[in-house]
Order: sequence, then structure tokens, then C-alpha cells
Amino acid sequence: MENSEKTIVVLLACGSFNPVTNMHLRLFELAKDFVKGIISPVGDAYKKKGLMPAHHQVIMAELATKNSKLVEVDTWKNFQKEWIETVKMLRHYQDKLEASDCDQQQNSPTLERQDSSQKRSLEPKTKGAPKVKLLCGADLLESFGVPNFWKSEDITQIMADYGLICITQAGNAAQKFIYESDVLWKHWSNIHVVNEWITNDISSTKIQRALRRGQSIHYLVLDLVQEYIEKHNLYSSKRAILATLQRNTAEAKA
Amino acid sequence: MENSEKTIVVLLACGSFNPVTNMHLRLFELAKDFVKGIISPVGDAYKKKGLMPAHHQVIMAELATKNSKLVEVDTWKNFQKEWIETVKMLRHYQDKLEASDCDQQQNSPTLERQDSSQKRSLEPKTKGAPKVKLLCGADLLESFGVPNFWKSEDITQIMADYGLICITQAGNAAQKFIYESDVLWKHWSNIHVVNEWITNDISSTKIQRALRRGQSIHYLVLDLVQEYIEKHNLYSSKRAILATLQRNTAEAKA
Amino acid sequence: MENSEKTIVVLLACGSFNPVTNMHLRLFELAKDFVKGIISPVGDAYKKKGLMPAHHQVIMAELATKNSKLVEVDTWKNFQKEWIETVKMLRHYQDKLEASDCDQQQNSPTLERQDSSQKRSLEPKTKGAPKVKLLCGADLLESFGVPNFWKSEDITQIMADYGLICITQAGNAAQKFIYESDVLWKHWSNIHVVNEWITNDISSTKIQRALRRGQSIHYLVLDLVQEYIEKHNLYSSKRAILATLQRNTAEAKA
Amino acid sequence: MENSEKTIVVLLACGSFNPVTNMHLRLFELAKDFVKGIISPVGDAYKKKGLMPAHHQVIMAELATKNSKLVEVDTWKNFQKEWIETVKMLRHYQDKLEASDCDQQQNSPTLERQDSSQKRSLEPKTKGAPKVKLLCGADLLESFGVPNFWKSEDITQIMADYGLICITQAGNAAQKFIYESDVLWKHWSNIHVVNEWITNDISSTKIQRALRRGQSIHYLVLDLVQEYIEKHNLYSSKRAILATLQRNTAEAKA
Amino acid sequence: MENSEKTIVVLLACGSFNPVTNMHLRLFELAKDFVKGIISPVGDAYKKKGLMPAHHQVIMAELATKNSKLVEVDTWKNFQKEWIETVKMLRHYQDKLEASDCDQQQNSPTLERQDSSQKRSLEPKTKGAPKVKLLCGADLLESFGVPNFWKSEDITQIMADYGLICITQAGNAAQKFIYESDVLWKHWSNIHVVNEWITNDISSTKIQRALRRGQSIHYLVLDLVQEYIEKHNLYSSKRAILATLQRNTAEAKA
Amino acid sequence: MENSEKTIVVLLACGSFNPVTNMHLRLFELAKDFVKGIISPVGDAYKKKGLMPAHHQVIMAELATKNSKLVEVDTWKNFQKEWIETVKMLRHYQDKLEASDCDQQQNSPTLERQDSSQKRSLEPKTKGAPKVKLLCGADLLESFGVPNFWKSEDITQIMADYGLICITQAGNAAQKFIYESDVLWKHWSNIHVVNEWITNDISSTKIQRALRRGQSIHYLVLDLVQEYIEKHNLYSSKRAILATLQRNTAEAKA
Repeated sequence: MENSEKTIVVLLACGSFNPVTNMHLRLFELAKDFVKGIISPVGDAYKKKGLMPAHHQVIMAELATKNSKLVEVDTWKNFQKEWIETVKMLRHYQDKLEASDCDQQQNSPTLERQDSSQKRSLEPKTKGAPKVKLLCGADLLESFGVPNFWKSEDITQIMADYGLICITQAGNAAQKFIYESDVLWKHWSNIHVVNEWITNDISSTKIQRALRRGQSIHYLVLDLVQEYIEKHNLYSSKRAILATLQRNTAEAKA
Repeated sequence: MENSEKTIVVLLACGSFNPVTNMHLRLFELAKDFVKGIISPVGDAYKKKGLMPAHHQVIMAELATKNSKLVEVDTWKNFQKEWIETVKMLRHYQDKLEASDCDQQQNSPTLERQDSSQKRSLEPKTKGAPKVKLLCGADLLESFGVPNFWKSEDITQIMADYGLICITQAGNAAQKFIYESDVLWKHWSNIHVVNEWITNDISSTKIQRALRRGQSIHYLVLDLVQEYIEKHNLYSSKRAILATLQRNTAEAKA
Repeated sequence: MENSEKTIVVLLACGSFNPVTNMHLRLFELAKDFVKGIISPVGDAYKKKGLMPAHHQVIMAELATKNSKLVEVDTWKNFQKEWIETVKMLRHYQDKLEASDCDQQQNSPTLERQDSSQKRSLEPKTKGAPKVKLLCGADLLESFGVPNFWKSEDITQIMADYGLICITQAGNAAQKFIYESDVLWKHWSNIHVVNEWITNDISSTKIQRALRRGQSIHYLVLDLVQEYIEKHNLYSSKRAILATLQRNTAEAKA
Repeated sequence: MENSEKTIVVLLACGSFNPVTNMHLRLFELAKDFVKGIISPVGDAYKKKGLMPAHHQVIMAELATKNSKLVEVDTWKNFQKEWIETVKMLRHYQDKLEASDCDQQQNSPTLERQDSSQKRSLEPKTKGAPKVKLLCGADLLESFGVPNFWKSEDITQIMADYGLICITQAGNAAQKFIYESDVLWKHWSNIHVVNEWITNDISSTKIQRALRRGQSIHYLVLDLVQEYIEKHNLYSSKRAILATLQRNTAEAKA
Repeated sequence: MENSEKTIVVLLACGSFNPVTNMHLRLFELAKDFVKGIISPVGDAYKKKGLMPAHHQVIMAELATKNSKLVEVDTWKNFQKEWIETVKMLRHYQDKLEASDCDQQQNSPTLERQDSSQKRSLEPKTKGAPKVKLLCGADLLESFGVPNFWKSEDITQIMADYGLICITQAGNAAQKFIYESDVLWKHWSNIHVVNEWITNDISSTKIQRALRRGQSIHYLVLDLVQEYIEKHNLYSSKRAILATLQRNTAEAKA
Repeated sequence: MENSEKTIVVLLACGSFNPVTNMHLRLFELAKDFVKGIISPVGDAYKKKGLMPAHHQVIMAELATKNSKLVEVDTWKNFQKEWIETVKMLRHYQDKLEASDCDQQQNSPTLERQDSSQKRSLEPKTKGAPKVKLLCGADLLESFGVPNFWKSEDITQIMADYGLICITQAGNAAQKFIYESDVLWKHWSNIHVVNEWITNDISSTKIQRALRRGQSIHYLVLDLVQEYIEKHNLYSSKRAILATLQRNTAEAKA
């Protein structure tokens, strides 16, 4: 996997980081030729059963990426009142990056700027500006095949305008899945399948289960995340019940 | 897995910690009802191809367990001139622990001491004194079935006098293996099979391969271990060749 | 599997004994550390398609257990007008056993009785009295995970008040199933998973099919059961039709 | 599987009946269209490790087939001084059966006899006389593919002159095995593959292991066999040692 | 598979030949002991999504069988206004063959004719007249088990009056499927399972996909078929859209 | 798989074309972006058991590629007195192609030639001249991992100087194999793994077996190849024996 120009930005959006695990961090690690990653935790608007209040997710994600030069946390999604569709999120970050890229060029010395702006006028968005792509595991890829799970125009737009970095522990299954889908096949050049050769089975769901049962999650999430979880007693049976109560009360008041 | 008296000491001996990975640390984590662990890296005497000089292994193991209340590193094996068989190692640590246990009791206030020493005279070694057990993965268990890999009297002694804590990702295969072996079956009560439900595939061999190829090992070993490896450029292709050269030169001089 | 006090009574309830096969008898055999078994065939009230009139099931079960010191047949369920839920059945037998246990103690010599009744007043039901448990194969265990197949309060009560002896040919799958269910996990200590290492594939359904096709069921059910089936021409194609007719006629008359 | 003339005799020879299990009896049961079976236990001459003295095997086989109209035990092999190759055994029984067939015809009324003997002179051995075939499981079939396990001329003779009845739990694997072997393919018409649809995993080896461990073998061998084993304490750890001693002493005296 | 009288006619009906592939031709090849095959492509009446106009299917089938002494194409089904059920199709061809068989006998020289017609009066349809059977792959066999996919009286009639030749790459799965179905089991003697030992994965669906993507189908269909497809640009993305348009227009006019 | 310059020559060398099958032809078909293929049958010098005299292989290969614009047959290997190692063969064809490339350039108009020869003097062999690569299936790839099957310097040279086009039906297994081998990994950029999505199981060995048994090979090899085989009665049992005899006689005379 080669990316000589290093101008691509990776955005991880699939699933919720609840909590962020070493598996999530590995995804970015394996895609690190793609320069930069953004973790954008699901906000309060998305009331999936068992989700923590958003601020916990954000803080854990920030703790997990504190020392990372690769990945940063963005909370834009958290401040939205409604559930943001993936394709809108990709557009938001693409727009934002192009704007900031443009600013940088305007701030650069005159001569050089002219040169590059001339270039830009010919190929306005494709050269120089970073590209947002969706970073995902095989499960998201396969969700594209589930009837009515995605709007078909969203799939087309994600594939055509942005593209995927798919990290997988069984590369051929992913390739076969792409081969058997007409829409994925059409955009194959826009899908980067990266093999994770040293496999693991960590997931947020399994971390939650382990915590609910008082089992160790050491070495499955980062120490800082583990400490935060313990301090706030997140994901324990009691906590789960309490969180539900509090929110219900809050909603009742509103 | 219940261990109400918390008097057992776990000793990890199988394989070499070259380097110590998150998988090794998980083994202790999953066996943590068993109080205390000792990592005893293979010494220079055991000249397996590709092994680092022992001091690197020891330092990495110490870095990996720096914050652990559970596990400590012991270098006794490193100072031995010869390859130490597993059963001898178990005996060494058992003797050491019993001696220290005895000392503690002798140092305790008189009245109490008398009391306890009376107790000891009746059941000399079984009560109070910690017990050393061998902590291992399924591969070590299965090695017991490989003809001529172990001396059969060593297997018998390990099983009868010490016992195993076997951490495995496929519990039933381990139990079937025990069932089909007469010697393991006989000592089943001395084998604790602990399921690792959240599986992973990390091994020292795979870490070495990733490093040889310049691939990321982030989140597969602890950060401190990774930094040490990078600083000393361990396991890179060049390093491997250099290490061989240096040792050959040293041997030639001696 | 150790049961030093030998005070537990095992009750087999899952599935119908239609006919009782060597597989059913093996279940009791493998659970024989648990003292005593009761076969309680499904009564006429439970009109599952293809079920024989209850008296055939009862007789076959009695023939199969004629020489058994372990297992007896109880027909209480057969005399009920309605389908009896598993949890009610467990309660019925638990009550019955405690009553008989009580009687035995009252009939014992005076001094001793006082002693034991004093004991009973302190720990009324837990000591001495036998305990009813549900004996089952892996299929019943897995049925706990099928949505709406069981009332959730029934599962909780079975697990908390009685417990399971689960005989299985793939121990790890059973353990994994328990691990992944919060309610089963909570009561793990009340579930005994017993491995059947010498596997077989016998089931009442397969016996019925073999008979319908005129194939041998020799050595798959006991000789006495086979002879009874042959004598009464049970499960043959013709028999199945006839049985339906007779019952319909009987119902029409009533 | 149809055999309208019912003139074939089945001979079970593979493996040792040590002890005879329900699996062995099922083999005959599934091949019962082939009229008659002979169990011929391996004699003392074949000193395979762990084999009982021949008389135990013979008695157990006789107990197991006591009520069978299908199968009888023959001890000819037991009285041979040397190990008898399978093909010689087949010839022995074929000769014996033809001789007895001939006798029967000579004892029949004159007219009829002339008729049949004239017939015999034309097609001397093929008509009327029963045919011996080798009854086996898939393991024996597969042993034909193991280099140097059988003399190739023996395989050819068994296949061409006698034939196989192969009872298997995975019919296609057997057929594929035959397809891939030139010699088996050539004689395909002489191999009857019979599917055992209700599979089981019983074997003499597993029975021995269960007994060595004091586990129940109930319903895996017939009651009479089980009682004989218990009475003579066969296959227990102690018994195994004793048997070896006795034989050694006997040999030393001789 | 032996068929000494060579009087059976094989009819392939399952699936649509859209296009006819080497896999279809292999089916006939493997069933060639059964004398003669008829390919009867699905007509226009059966408007399955993605089906070509019938004349293309017919021409491709004719090109594919041009040099075959075994297989011919029949277009009767194409001229029907409605979807023809499989059992009706079998009856049609059976009637036709019997009629033509009768004609041949009437046209034969007098003496011989008398002879054979006398024979016919005794065993009117069973001797001499060819028999139509359904040639299929394992998928059709398995479709018999899908609830409500077939009328149960149609299955019974197909099995009882005609029969199947089932070509399969996994013979045992087919046999197990038959074993587990009461209706298929009953007619087992009318089902010929033929193993295809040299497996392949070609299907019309996969050919269509390859063509839609501009991939080579060389050696997967016959050269003449491939050339016809290329010349008429069948199955390309554009073609698919065009074909739909044309048919819609034609329907609108009518 | 894109190859915009179309300057690469593919050479198929693995295995013997004995006979050439549709599978071999598919290999070239799937690699057809790589311009041109050469089939170079194993010569008489390579006396592998069961190999036909070389001229049959050559003629069949020529018949199979008669209409191919892609593939031609070369008999250079056949005229060698000794077994030619793969790496020598690659070198032979590379040299030959460069020579012919050079000739073409010398014959081109003066101006252009000067231009291109100047270019050549700077980058003597890499630009313009076609490149020979080894076309293979997964089996050859895996043979690189078999100890002592290849000289390690040959593997290195093949990988570094030429490269592989590996056609495989299980892409990930191939990639995993490459990943786990240090030498293959190093040259990954020189290995093109092409997925064959429409799998088949045809091989020369299976064709030979089918012929030995009188089974149809129709649609598994091309018609012209099949006709040649039938005409010369190749691969039949008798033929095999005869061929051996003739060669022995010829050798005896020489």
C-alpha cells in the first residue's frame, strides 16, 4: 500500500467508540500510510441501546489518541441535533479540509501561491487538497450488501466521491464480497483492502460484556481508557441501569 | 476459577519472551486469581536461532511489567551456564518461595510463630506455603503429546508436583487433549484450563516478522517495549545480522 | 464431576421419549454421580404431531429402565389435563422429594430425629433434602437463546432454584453459549457441563424415521424397547395413520 | 442394497474385537441383507500391544452374538500358530462354505442332486455356493492406500475374488477414495458402500480407555459383555499389567 | 451407471440456458449412458429478470450442441403462451417420444412389426418406448425441500412417473438430502446420482457477471457461443438496459 | 490488473502439459493483460513417470493454441539434452526477446532508431524490451516453501530478475503464503496475484485418470486435443504400457 503524495485524510466513522479499543487504534495504525485520522464518536442524538452519554465516548477517544501523531478526535457530530448520515459526515470533513487547504495556500508566499492557484483553477479539487476516505472493518463493507440497510444513492456517493480503506483479517472474503457486488466492483480502484495479518477479536461489545461481568480488559484497551472506565464505573451492570434512569429523568423534565 | 486462599504463585516459563507481547501479559491477566507471576526469560545458554542477547529480553520484560502488581521478572535462569529444564526451574522457584515463606514466619512475633510452626510440623509443606505452577498456552500443553519432546518423567513430575494453568482460546480442544492423554487425565485436577474468550493471534514470532519488515507493532506490545525495540533497533534485518557477527567475534576471542 | 454428598436428584425432562433411545439412557449414565434420575414422559395433553398415545411412551420408558438402579419412570405428568411447564414440573418433584425426605426423618428413632429437626429449623431446605436439577442435552441449553421460546422468568427460576446438568458432545460450544448469555453466565455455578467423549447421533426423530422406512434400529434402542415397538407396530407408516384415525374417532365420540 | 438370492456370507475381519462393541454389531446389522456373518477374533499369535488373551475376546464375541440369528463366532484363527493374513482367512472360509454347500447337495434327493451337480460342472463355483466378503469400516478401506501396509497382490485378490462390504458414516469420502485408487476403481462393482446415517463414535480403543479410567461403558457394549468385563476386571490399569506379567511368565516357562 | 437397453431419454429442464455453459454440456456428458438429451430453453413467457429474448437462448443452445450426437434443442416450450410447469413438460416429451416410437414400429417391415406390436399389447408402455427423465444439478434436488417452491403433487409425479438424473459435485450431500426426505427416499430407485469428480463452478449467473464486467469467458462456454455473445453484445451493461427498453416499447405498442 | 505499456511477455513453465487442459488455457486468459504467452512443454530429457514422448505434448499444445492470438508453443526445451532449470529457461527467453527487440529497433527508420538507441544506452535493458515472467498456479508458489525443492538462489533470481504471475482460486491463501515467506515478501511488487473467481478443478493428472478409465474428458480439454488423444489412444492403460515398451526398446538399441 503506497501513497507517495501523502495527501489523504482518513476518517473512521463506522460503529461507536464505546469504548474505543485497541482494535480501533490498530485500524488507524494499519492505514497509517494515509497520513491522518479523525475519530468522530456517535453523538447523543443516536440513542442506540446501551450507549453512554456522548461526553464519555469523546473523553475516552481523546485519552486513547493523546500520544498519537496520527489520529485526532473531532466532536462535530456530537453537537448535531440529529443523527448524521455517513455520507454527510464525509462531505462535512471534505469541505472543512479543502477550506483549510485553501487558506494555507493563500497564506503561502505570493509567487508560489499564484502558481498553485493557477493549477487549482484547472483541476480545482483533485490536486493538493486532502481527500477524506472512510476507514472501516469488514463488517461495514458487508453491511453494504444488507438490503435496505443503506440508501443505494449513499453507497454510490461514498464509493464514487470518497472511497474506503477496509482493514480486514480475511482479505479474500473482502475481495470476494467486492467482486460479487456490481456497485463495489465498479469502484474497486477506490477501495483499499488492507490485511491485518496478526488477528484479534476485540470489539466494543465484548469489552462491554467483560466489564459487565467484572472481567479484566487489561491490554484490550489502553491503560488510560481502562482507568477512566474504572473511575467512572462505566459499563457495569449498575451503571447501565443508572444511566438509563438519569436520562429518562432528564427527558421527563424537558 | 476460584482460589479463595490466594496462596498460589504462577510461573510463566514456556517460550521465550523475545519480545514480551501483550499476549504474554494477557496470560497473567487471565490467571490473576492465582496471585503472582514470575517471568523468567530464557538465558544466553539457550542458543535458539534468532534469540537476542538475554539482557534485552530481561529489560523488555521489566519494562512490560513495570506497572504490574501481578508479575515480576526474575533473572535466575539467565545466570545459569546451561539450559535449565522446566522441571528444575519449577523446583528452584518452589524451594525459594518455601524458604521465604518460612523466613516470614520465623520473623513474626513469638507467640504466633510457635502456633504456626506447630501447624507446620503437622502439615509441613501443603498449608500456607505458596505453590508454583506452570502458566502456559495450548501449544505447550500439546507439546506434551509430541514423541520425545519431553522426558516422560519430567511430564509426570510437572503434573504431579506442580500443575498447569493453561490459557486457551479453544477450551474444548484443550480438554479433549487432556482426555486423550493418560498422564494428563490422571492429573486433571492439577490442570486449570482458562478460556480466553476475546481471542488474538499475537506471538513473539509474528512480532519479529513485522519488525523485520518495518511494519507497525503498535498495540501488540506495550509502548515501553516498542520504544526500547526501536531505540536499539532490535529484530530489524540488519540488527539480526550484526548480533550474529558480534557474538561470533566474542566467541572467537574467548 | 464430584458430588461427595450424593443428595442430588436428577430429572430428565427435555424432549419426549418417543421412543426412549440409548442416547437418553447415556445422559443418565454420564450424570450418574448425581444419584437418581426420573424420566417423566410428555403426556397426552401435549399433542405434538407424531406423538404416540402416552401409555406407549411410559411402557417403553419402563422397559428401558427396568434394570436400572439409577433411573425410574414417573407418570405424574401423564395424568395432568394440561401441558405442564418445565419449571412447574421441577417444583412438583422438588416438593415431593422434600416431603418424602421429611417423612423419613420423622420415622427415624426419636433422639436422632430431634437432632436433625433442630438442624432443619436452622437451615430448613438446603441441607439433607435432595435437589432436583434438569438433565438436558446441548439443544435444550441453546433453546434458552431462542427469542420467545421460554418465558424469561422461567429461565431465571430454573437456573436460580434448580440448575442444569448439560451433557454435550462439544463442551466448548456449550461453554461459549453460557458465556455469551448474561442470565446463564450469572448462574454458571449452577450448570454442570459434562462432556460425552464417545459421541453418537441417535435421536427419537431418527429412530422414528428408520422405523418408518423399515430400517434396523438394533443397538440404537434397548432390545426390550425394540421388541415392544415391533409387537405393536409403532412408528410404521400405517401405524401413524391408524393412530391418528383412532384418536380422531375417540375425540369425535367424546 | 438388494440381494435377492441371499447367498452371500459376510465375514468381519478388520481390527480386533477387543472388546466387541455395539459399533461392530451395527456393522452386521447394516449389512444384514447379506445373510450371515462370522466374527473371527484375532488369535494369541497376533501379539498386538494391549490385546487380551484370545479366549476373552472369543467369549465376549459369543456373548454379544448369543441372540443373533445373523452372526456367529468362529475360532479357527485362534488355533493357528501364526498370524493369518486376511486373504488366507477369506479363502479358508470360502473353501469351508463351498464344501458344506456341496455336502448339502450330496445329501439331497437323487434327482435333484444330479440336476444341480450338472449345473455345478458347468459353472463350478459361482452359482449356488455362498460367497465370502470382507465386512469393514472406512478405516480398513483407507488402509489400502497406505504404502506397504498391504501386499498389492493381496489387495487385488481380496477385491477380485471376494469383495468388500464397507459400512461408512461419510459415504462420499469412501466413494472418492475408491475413485482415486486405480485398483479399487477396477473392482468397484465388488465393493458395496453402505451408509450409516445414524452415526456414532464407538471403538474398542475408546472402550478400553473408558475402562482404564473407570468410566461407564453402559449402552456402548452389550450388557452381557459389560458384565463379563467387570467380572474379570478386564482392561483396568491393574489388569493390563497383570496380563502382561502372566504371559511373560508363561513364555519364560516354555 | 449402467444402462444396457439404452432406451432412456434425458431431458434437461432446470434453470435457463442463458447462456448455455460448459457446465450444462458436462451434465449431459456425465449422463451419456442415458442415450439422448433435449435442451428446452425457457420461453419468453417466463419473464425472469435479466432473461434474454428467447431466440438468443435457442440459438446459443443450438450452437453449443451443433456437433453433439447426444443433445438436441427443442423449442416447443418457447412457443407456449404461458409458463410450462416441469411436470407438464416431462409429459409432453414422454407423449411425443411414445408416439414417435409407435410410428417407427408401424413403419417397420410387416413381420417384424406384427411381432413388436404384439409385444406392445402385452406391456404397452414399459418396454421399448423411451423414458423421459429430468436431468438436474444438486440445486434442483435441494429445491424440492424448500417449502412451497414446488407443488407436492408435482414432486410426487415427477419422482414416480419420470425420475431424476442428478449430477453432483458432492455425492454424499445429495444422498443425505434424499435420505432425509420421505418422498425422495420412497423413489430412490428412480433417482440416479452421478458424481462429477472433476468439479467446476461455472454457472449462467457467473457468465453474465463476467460479461457485464468485460471479463473473459473463454473456455467457460464454447467458442461458438462466445462469438455469438460478442457479436450481439449480449449481457453487457448497455445491452441489458437496451433489451429492457425494447421489450417495454413492444409491450406498449401491443 | 493494469499494464498500460503492454510490454511484458508471460511464460508458462510449471508442470507438464500432459495433456494441455482448459485450465492451462484459462491461466493465460486470466493473465491476458500481459500480452503474450509461451508454452514450453517439458522435453524427453525429463523422464517423469507417465510422461508421453515430447512430440505428443508439443502437438497437443499447438492444437490447443491454434486459434490463440495470445499464446504460442516453443519447443526449445524439447531439443535440450538435459533437464532445464526454470531459471535458465527464463533467461533463455529473456535473452531471445531482447535480441529480437533489438533487431526490430535496428530495422526501424534511422532518426527514430538513434533516438531509441540513445535511450537504450542509458537504461540498457529496462525500457522497451519485453519482460519474461513465470506464469503459475498456487501450487508452484507453495512449492517455494518446500525445503530443498528449489535452490534458494534460484528462487531469489526468479523473484528479483523476472517475477511471477500467480493465478489462484483462493487469493488470500496465496497472499498469506507470500506474507509468511521473507523472500517472497521482499519481492511482493514482482508477484501479481490474479484471482480466478469461477473456479474449477481440472488438472492433467485428473484428465489422465479419466482417460485411463474410459471416462469423458469433453469440455475439460479442447475438442482438437480430445480428438488427437482419441486418435492416438494416448493415456489409455494399454497405451501407457506400450509407450514404456517402445521407449525401452529404443533405448536398448541405442
